[in-house]
Amino acid sequence: MSKGLPKRSENYSEWYNELVKRADLAENSAVRGCMVIKPYGYSIWEKMQAVLDKKFKETGHSNAYFPLFIPKSYLSKEASHVEGFAKECAVVTHYRLKMDESGKNVIVDPDAKLEEELIVRPTSETVIWSTYKNWIQSYRDLPLLVNQWANVVRWEMRTRLFLRTAEFLWQEGHTAHATEKEAIEETETMLEVYADFAEKFMALPVIKGRKTPNERFAGAVDTYCIEALMQDGKALQAGTSHFLGQNFAKAFDVKFSDKENKLEYVWGTSWGVSTRLMGALIMAHSDDEGLVLPPTLAPIQVVIVPIFKGEEQLAKISDKAKEIKKTLEAKGITVKFDHSDKQSPGYKFAEYELKGIPVRIAMGPRDMENNTAEVARRDTKTKTTVSHDELIAYVENLLEEIQNNIYKKALDFRTQNTTEVNSYEEFKKVLDEKTGFVLAHWDGTSETEDKIKEETKATIRCIPLDFKEEAGVCICTGKPSKGRVVFARAY
Amino acid sequence: MSKGLPKRSENYSEWYNELVKRADLAENSAVRGCMVIKPYGYSIWEKMQAVLDKKFKETGHSNAYFPLFIPKSYLSKEASHVEGFAKECAVVTHYRLKMDESGKNVIVDPDAKLEEELIVRPTSETVIWSTYKNWIQSYRDLPLLVNQWANVVRWEMRTRLFLRTAEFLWQEGHTAHATEKEAIEETETMLEVYADFAEKFMALPVIKGRKTPNERFAGAVDTYCIEALMQDGKALQAGTSHFLGQNFAKAFDVKFSDKENKLEYVWGTSWGVSTRLMGALIMAHSDDEGLVLPPTLAPIQVVIVPIFKGEEQLAKISDKAKEIKKTLEAKGITVKFDHSDKQSPGYKFAEYELKGIPVRIAMGPRDMENNTAEVARRDTKTKTTVSHDELIAYVENLLEEIQNNIYKKALDFRTQNTTEVNSYEEFKKVLDEKTGFVLAHWDGTSETEDKIKEETKATIRCIPLDFKEEAGVCICTGKPSKGRVVFARAY
Repeated sequence: MSKGLPKRSENYSEWYNELVKRADLAENSAVRGCMVIKPYGYSIWEKMQAVLDKKFKETGHSNAYFPLFIPKSYLSKEASHVEGFAKECAVVTHYRLKMDESGKNVIVDPDAKLEEELIVRPTSETVIWSTYKNWIQSYRDLPLLVNQWANVVRWEMRTRLFLRTAEFLWQEGHTAHATEKEAIEETETMLEVYADFAEKFMALPVIKGRKTPNERFAGAVDTYCIEALMQDGKALQAGTSHFLGQNFAKAFDVKFSDKENKLEYVWGTSWGVSTRLMGALIMAHSDDEGLVLPPTLAPIQVVIVPIFKGEEQLAKISDKAKEIKKTLEAKGITVKFDHSDKQSPGYKFAEYELKGIPVRIAMGPRDMENNTAEVARRDTKTKTTVSHDELIAYVENLLEEIQNNIYKKALDFRTQNTTEVNSYEEFKKVLDEKTGFVLAHWDGTSETEDKIKEETKATIRCIPLDFKEEAGVCICTGKPSKGRVVFARAY
Repeated sequence: MSKGLPKRSENYSEWYNELVKRADLAENSAVRGCMVIKPYGYSIWEKMQAVLDKKFKETGHSNAYFPLFIPKSYLSKEASHVEGFAKECAVVTHYRLKMDESGKNVIVDPDAKLEEELIVRPTSETVIWSTYKNWIQSYRDLPLLVNQWANVVRWEMRTRLFLRTAEFLWQEGHTAHATEKEAIEETETMLEVYADFAEKFMALPVIKGRKTPNERFAGAVDTYCIEALMQDGKALQAGTSHFLGQNFAKAFDVKFSDKENKLEYVWGTSWGVSTRLMGALIMAHSDDEGLVLPPTLAPIQVVIVPIFKGEEQLAKISDKAKEIKKTLEAKGITVKFDHSDKQSPGYKFAEYELKGIPVRIAMGPRDMENNTAEVARRDTKTKTTVSHDELIAYVENLLEEIQNNIYKKALDFRTQNTTEVNSYEEFKKVLDEKTGFVLAHWDGTSETEDKIKEETKATIRCIPLDFKEEAGVCICTGKPSKGRVVFARAY
């Protein structure tokens, strides 16, 4: 490692970019807007996937896989859907390359033009509902609860690692139901699954709410979301769950015969989270020394670093270190014992701080004499000397404490950076100076929402699920309002 | 369920297609050559993935993710590679759609043409080695042991579910090494991993061998493979592991400084298995009643079907069934208790046979009186009455026995269908009448291999790793040969 990271306080954006690269999480590829997720970054994503996948299965869903390509005509079947996704998609027009006449260059073979262009999926509602048409005949086939883990492509013009990339990885759930009520319940259940994952595993407090019509998913009747606050005071949408009504069922003619043998359109939902969560995880907790990972998602939870001169010292420490490693692993804790002699302990300390390993145990010859070890926690960077006897229980407890502390810190930050305002002046001042979530009255119209966005770059993140009825006047127009919504500048 | 499957003996190909559809494994989508992997099929693939992923990690590999798109110029950098893959690839030429002048149709926006076309990856050597160039500077960065789980696209003209599809799912390992020796060892290690997986988990005996130059991966110095025999006597290549030499390192200028500070090109390997394994699994073991799954890969290993009239009988059986389920699950066995009253037991029996559930436990009122259950095994379709006391141990043991029996059956079949021949007449006769693997002398030239392929549709599946030196003459040309190679007609 050379010099340190840029400081968050000086250049948050540069700090994020550098951290993502130096901690070996991801990097830009030669293909515009497409990232390479590096092994360390991917191992965190794998932890996220494992937890989410388990939750999806516990709530009755099965995984499946649908085609990468969507016929152009499918995308057009749902009017607002094509409106939302046609502007930024990768289009496959040919299926072969060939040598040019010089025999030196490879060119697209003009004879291999597709009759109908194929779109690389930006999301899979259309191809999935065209399939569901064949899977659903009767109420006995419902509910249909399917999820897919996949890559999708949206041709974004401005990209940032994890936060906005042309290709990204995600899961997309697509469910079909016999009744409106059941579909809405599913939409809400999955929002809860996401919120629970964010809070318990990512240690990230989120506001649960519903999007305004302006911000809805293209093709949805209602979009629920979880919104998190990053350390620079900007909001990040961390997951969405859509109630699709009968929109896609109608577009793809998906009907079922109910118990009275009457044909009805099916009710649908879709919901997804993506590698964007990696961006949220990084930005919410990390500091100027590097990544801070909640223990539940850390690929390595504890690292043991021996401090030694020569083989003999190392051998002695190794015996103890291996014993500790084995005991911790038996308790389901992931441990790395880094006995390499290629780097100094100081170098290793900095490296594991950069990588966000929650707990570091260091042991030198003096520790061995005293039957102790030095335990450092990544979140607060405090160190404690612990006796060998107490070490296992101490570390076990510490991991839980770190998880709680990271969450609490993020929650306190959010509380401090959530402001109720009652005038447009105050609104703008808070956005510019304090930043964070701003709770303000709004008259409920798209026009006002657009105007505020244009003038302040702030959007309505959501109408919170715990919306409180409170008479007031819109900060922008002075018209009556029934309660406060959550505004912020956002990623 | 309506009528039964076509019989293997009458129309093997139709039997396969119908089985894949009726057992809810996969189906064709509206996009030419792209399949939908249905939840039940996908759950088998997930089991395969989990086992393989664990093996990859145990052998030191990490997962990562590289872009879906490959710039056209990258594909051209390795001469034989582009030759092999340019003929069948999906080409992205545009990045936007728009409404036509009528405002009714969505068309490709001609203003959104890419400067350089992008290829949807048919395999990722090029994009990965272009990345490795930045990851590798010194011998300290080696070996680099990376795997990716991904979708790939090859524009096949004739497709069949799982066996040959335009889009398929796979894993591709890509490793970089300091020495030729180490890269060859890696190639061989991964072949062993595949062979072990095929034999221990898929219950599928395989021949390990090396491909002839004709059949090598485009860009490899040497291709190792595992070859399996299907019930119709055709061979199926179930996995490949390639020693790439320095070919991709040279094409992408990937050098490292060795311990003496001398710059050298890196040595590479790549290896992969795909959803094609699903086809192999289905075709190797299944019968005219449906799928036969080895217990280690069965998403449901045991199904309990109650035979009852009315709530009261069901309640009694349910208590016992739930107890059995719980006890089996505590031993890591996956159990489904199907107490639905929508279908008759007979319907359920046929359905679970079709789906290949290894063990079925049926319990009716008389069984309850006698403290027994009827245990049926899917592979041999035999039934045994077992007392409740002995049931758990019996089932546990039975699952192991089924796994072994399926393997043994496939091995016996292969032994019976592997024939040594010494003349071209005999060779053709065996291929036409007996089918299977044919061991024959070959003069070692590509010309002869091509001629045999053209005349008999048989290819050299591999030069087996346990190749025995044995002087002989080529069945086709009469020229001298050093030993027998493995021929077959293949999928």
